[in-house]
Formats: sequence, C-alpha cells, structure tokens
Amino acid sequence: MKITAVIMAGGRGERFWPKSRNSCPKQFLSLTSDGETMIQKTVKRLSPLVSPEDIFIVTNAAYGELVQDQLPDVPKENILSEPCARNTAPCIAFAAAVIQKKYGDAIMLVLPSDHLIGYENIYIKTLKKAIKTAEEGKNLVTIGITPTYPETGYGYINFGEESGDAYEVERFVEKPDLPTAKKYLASGKYLWNSGMFVWKTSSIMDNMQALMPDIYEGALRIGESYCTPDFEETLVKEFTAFRSESVDFGIMEKASDIYTIPGSFGWDDVGSWLAVERINETDDDKNYFDGDVISVDSKRTTVCAGKRLVAAIGTRDIIIVDTDDVLLVCSKNNTQDVKKVIAQLKEQGRDELV
Amino acid sequence: MKITAVIMAGGRGERFWPKSRNSCPKQFLSLTSDGETMIQKTVKRLSPLVSPEDIFIVTNAAYGELVQDQLPDVPKENILSEPCARNTAPCIAFAAAVIQKKYGDAIMLVLPSDHLIGYENIYIKTLKKAIKTAEEGKNLVTIGITPTYPETGYGYINFGEESGDAYEVERFVEKPDLPTAKKYLASGKYLWNSGMFVWKTSSIMDNMQALMPDIYEGALRIGESYCTPDFEETLVKEFTAFRSESVDFGIMEKASDIYTIPGSFGWDDVGSWLAVERINETDDDKNYFDGDVISVDSKRTTVCAGKRLVAAIGTRDIIIVDTDDVLLVCSKNNTQDVKKVIAQLKEQGRDELV
Repeated sequence: MKITAVIMAGGRGERFWPKSRNSCPKQFLSLTSDGETMIQKTVKRLSPLVSPEDIFIVTNAAYGELVQDQLPDVPKENILSEPCARNTAPCIAFAAAVIQKKYGDAIMLVLPSDHLIGYENIYIKTLKKAIKTAEEGKNLVTIGITPTYPETGYGYINFGEESGDAYEVERFVEKPDLPTAKKYLASGKYLWNSGMFVWKTSSIMDNMQALMPDIYEGALRIGESYCTPDFEETLVKEFTAFRSESVDFGIMEKASDIYTIPGSFGWDDVGSWLAVERINETDDDKNYFDGDVISVDSKRTTVCAGKRLVAAIGTRDIIIVDTDDVLLVCSKNNTQDVKKVIAQLKEQGRDELV
Repeated sequence: MKITAVIMAGGRGERFWPKSRNSCPKQFLSLTSDGETMIQKTVKRLSPLVSPEDIFIVTNAAYGELVQDQLPDVPKENILSEPCARNTAPCIAFAAAVIQKKYGDAIMLVLPSDHLIGYENIYIKTLKKAIKTAEEGKNLVTIGITPTYPETGYGYINFGEESGDAYEVERFVEKPDLPTAKKYLASGKYLWNSGMFVWKTSSIMDNMQALMPDIYEGALRIGESYCTPDFEETLVKEFTAFRSESVDFGIMEKASDIYTIPGSFGWDDVGSWLAVERINETDDDKNYFDGDVISVDSKRTTVCAGKRLVAAIGTRDIIIVDTDDVLLVCSKNNTQDVKKVIAQLKEQGRDELV
C-alpha cells in the first residue's frame, strides 16, 4: 500500500519567541548547531520510508513560501495551505481527503513538524511496525513514547493487551499532576502521547464520518476539488466553516479499536527554550553558547547570540536570546512566561514584534 | 583668592563596559534618567562656586572634542589634553602649573569627573569650608566622606585633632578587609578617601618640588609654555617622560600637615553597574528599567536597554546592558568581572569592542 506522510506545520511556536515569530515560527527555525530547520529534519529523517513526492505539508497559507524554500523537493501541490487555523482535526481531514483523492486508499503517517528524534533508525523501525499494524486492518494507530521521567506537561496513553507489534489503547488521559504521573510510570502501562499517528486514509475517513460528520463532509468536498480550478474557492469556503477541533478530542478519545506502538527513539518535543540545552552539546559548566559569546564564570546558561557579541558574566540558570529587534533574558524557571510577553505586545499593538 | 577647579576626566571607566568604551568613557555617559552626562553634572554642581571659565578639564587628548561638545561653556584653552595616561600625580602637576601660570597663586579644587553627589548644597558648603581652610594656609586639604557602612573597596583617611573646620590627617590607609573596615567605622576616626582635594597651587607645587621633583620640573616647563606656540611640543615631550604616579602615593601619603574636611553629601563613586540602581529610582520589585523593557516577574533587575525591546522574564539580581554591538548580561555578584571580558577582547584583538 502506498505510504504517505502528512507533516503538520501550522503551529505558531510561541514559546520560542523572540526567534519564533508570526512571520517564521519554530518549525522553520534551526535550533541546533547544524543549521537545519526543524521541518527540514522532519522530512529528511523520513527518507528511508517516504520520498518527498509523497510527503504532504499542511501549513498556514502565510507559510507556503517558507515551506517551498526550505523543502524544494516536496512538490508544490503537496503543500496544503490552510486558510485559517482550526486545530488538528480539520488539518488531518483536509490532508486525508486530498491523499485519498490522489492515491485512493493509502497509509498516512501524521507527524508534527517541530519535534526532534535522537535515534532515527529506531524511529523508522517503530514507524514500520505502525505501518504494518495499520495495513493489517487495525483501525487507528498512535506512536506512544516510553516515558523516561514523570513529565506533567504531556498527555498519556494507557494501554492494555498486546496485539502483534501493538498494544490496545485503553484510554487517552490529560496532563497529570506529579503524583499521578509517578503512578503512571510505576504501572508500566502508560506512554507519552506524542501526536504521531499512522492509519489508512479509509480508516481515518470512516472515523471522521462517524464522529465528526460535519468536518468529514467539508473535507470530502475539498478533496474532490483538489487539482481542479475550483480548489482554492472550495478550500476557503469549507475550511473557514470548520469548527476548531483537535484530533485527540474529536477522534482518538472517542473512537474504539485504537492501538499504540511503544517507541523509544530519543523523542523531544522541543517544547520551550529549555530544550536547547537538551538537544545540543553543552560545556563542562552545562552552558550552551551559540554565536559570538564571551563567558566569565557562567553556569547552566543558554545563549543564542545574534549579530552582536554577548558577554555573560556570572550568570546561572538563564536563557539569553538575541535577535535584531528583541532581546530575551529569561530564567529557566519561567520559560512558559514567554507567552505573557507576547500577550502584552499584542495588547500594545506591537504586532511587528510578535 | 581666585577659585579654580580641576576636573580629572582621563579615566577609562572599564567597569561600565559595554556602554563605557575607549571612544567614550563613563564620564561622558549619562547613567541617570535625566540624560545629563557625569561630567556635565560635575561642572553644573560647581556653578555656585566656580564659573566655567575657571574650570579646567584634564583629559586624554582623544577626548578633547567630547569635552568641548559636552561642556561648551568651558573655554577651549582650559581643556588640558594629556598625550598619554600617567595617573593622577602628573595630571595634577600639569593643571597646577597651568593655573599658576594663568592666575598666579590660586585655590585649586581637584575633583573626579565621574562621581555623583546627592546633596549639592551640602557639597558646596563642604567645599567652602575646605577652601577657607586652604586659604588660611593649611598645606593640603582633602574631602573625607563620612562612611555609612564598612566598604572594603575604598581607601580610608584616619584623622586626629580638630583644627577649625578641619581635622588633622594622621594617615591614609589602603582598602581594608571587612573586619578592619568595621573597626574603622566603630572608632569614629576614619573617613572614606574620595579623591577630592583642595589646596593653593603654591602649596601643591611646593609639595611636588619636595616629594617628586622630576614631575615638578617637567610640569613647570609645561606651565611656562602654556598659551605660547611651544606648548604642544613641550607638553608632549615633558608629559610622555613622566612616570606613572598617583597623587595619593606620591604626595598625600608622604606629605605632612594635611587636613581633612568630613563631608556627608550623598557621595557615590558610581564604581560599577551596581551603582545604577542606587542612583536611580527603582520600582516596587527593586528593578530599574531604562528604555523599552517588558518584565514578567523580574526582581532586583537592572536593564539599560538600547534600540531594541528587552524582555526580562523571572530574572533576579542581574544587570542587562544592551548596546548596538555588544550585549552584557551580568550577575550582580560579578560586576567587577566586566574587566575580564575587556581583557579577553584585547587578547583577541577586538579593539573595536573595547
């Protein structure tokens, strides 16, 4: 069966402000010293499994050109531009309908564009298991990450009986508090919900028809118009009419016959500036310095320098990000508060800095 | 007797890097929100006592234009440009010889260009007492600051018997350790050495003749040539031949018959970036923000923004200084280490940043 990949690249990446901007969100940035952007890495690591002409990028219309520039091997008609943001369910419905129109029934990998994978061989092996599971007729398959610590910032997947390479999913659970997360880990029956899915287009379409018929109908009409002169008009009309809905809430938490493949391949969701020290090499004092940096007695300090020299003296547990028009100095305890600065800037009407 | 003032403005102000540069040291910067530079404030606060035409600025030749720009009321011939840096003794000898040539014997106030004074009325009253003391024939007079805490970064003046408005100086002592500084304060017999002096030109010249005849002779020759066509040539020849010597070591610690006037007028030597929060108003969280700053949960943070927005999130006890080509992020515990960065830059040959 044809294997395709859908890469979701419509996100805003607010937590990586001020590098991540409305005009160039996180997935189009390089946060590693090799200079490759997140989405470039995402496409590249799929190469043993999916060729660029079978990769579809769902993104905001504003980022169409960025995608083309960064991924010249992905055909232009595979860049699926959302006229507005409607969360992951309409995004996936749009892509599934287009793929079904183009190829008939096909395997569809659904992947975020802005995560990192440490062990790419194991990642590919895990995806292959998921593909085999989906091909065997299992309804919906999700990749669950074997937890390495009781993270409270992720949703979890509770799994039950083994079934071939996969496990039956008992339920999806929301972000837990710390004692609950610890219980999850101790039970050996919970995985992190990574937002990676594998299924046949026919399976996801059937589930949408049953669980969100309004979005299903609209997506079908978009799919029908794909590669016809009516496509743009139909897309705008149908997509803007969609309600916002996540695939987790709209499908995964309600569907039955769901399977998970446990994966352990150095997955990192690169969820905040704290990730930079995890995904890059640090020095003996646990500093990560990118660019022109002079340090005197700094420890556990992350510096992403811009065009200027950054002198960090005696700093501890702090993140410094320098851009042409904004400088961020952020305690490692407060990386989530970057969003509050963006909110203030919006209130002040300073959209050029958002 | 004619009252003149000599303002020493040849310093480099390394501890205020990266704002203070070789091309524009601290005394020519504004570190307060009123926009006045340190040297402008120094001249202005003397106005009840000395008019601009009787104020002499001794500075490095490289800063002559800066002085003229910032102090247009000071006559050009009062800007005494040192061809090279030779510490305070040659600086004062140069100025004393010039003033004696111009006015004959005169009162000479010797003042740093980069300190701040909180209570200017009291400052002027204190200077008046010192002038009266010097006019009465007391050899050398220094202003001592009544200590408010056991500072270990200043030299101290140990004083003895009262004599009119002044006290006899027993001895000058180097920077003490903390227990010694505490003893000094408890004794009630020690003042901070502020580097402010008052004397007749004839007195300081006599002392120089006795204690540093080489510098005295050279200075005399410079003074003789002042306002003649030979001045530039004589100055370069004599001044470059001077050895480096501080007035404290060369004169004050060796001369006899020295008096001190205790002063308590909100003196601040503005010795490091820590001073900025002392000399400016801070908010309820003890932050000082100058420029375009957004703060989320920051405390005891000093930000001197440049042309860009600075976002400070969750920061504590840190100093952020943004300039066009360098950004400094410095723990308040390490403000002295700014010099180490400058040393590194010099080693790297990056003089444009020094």
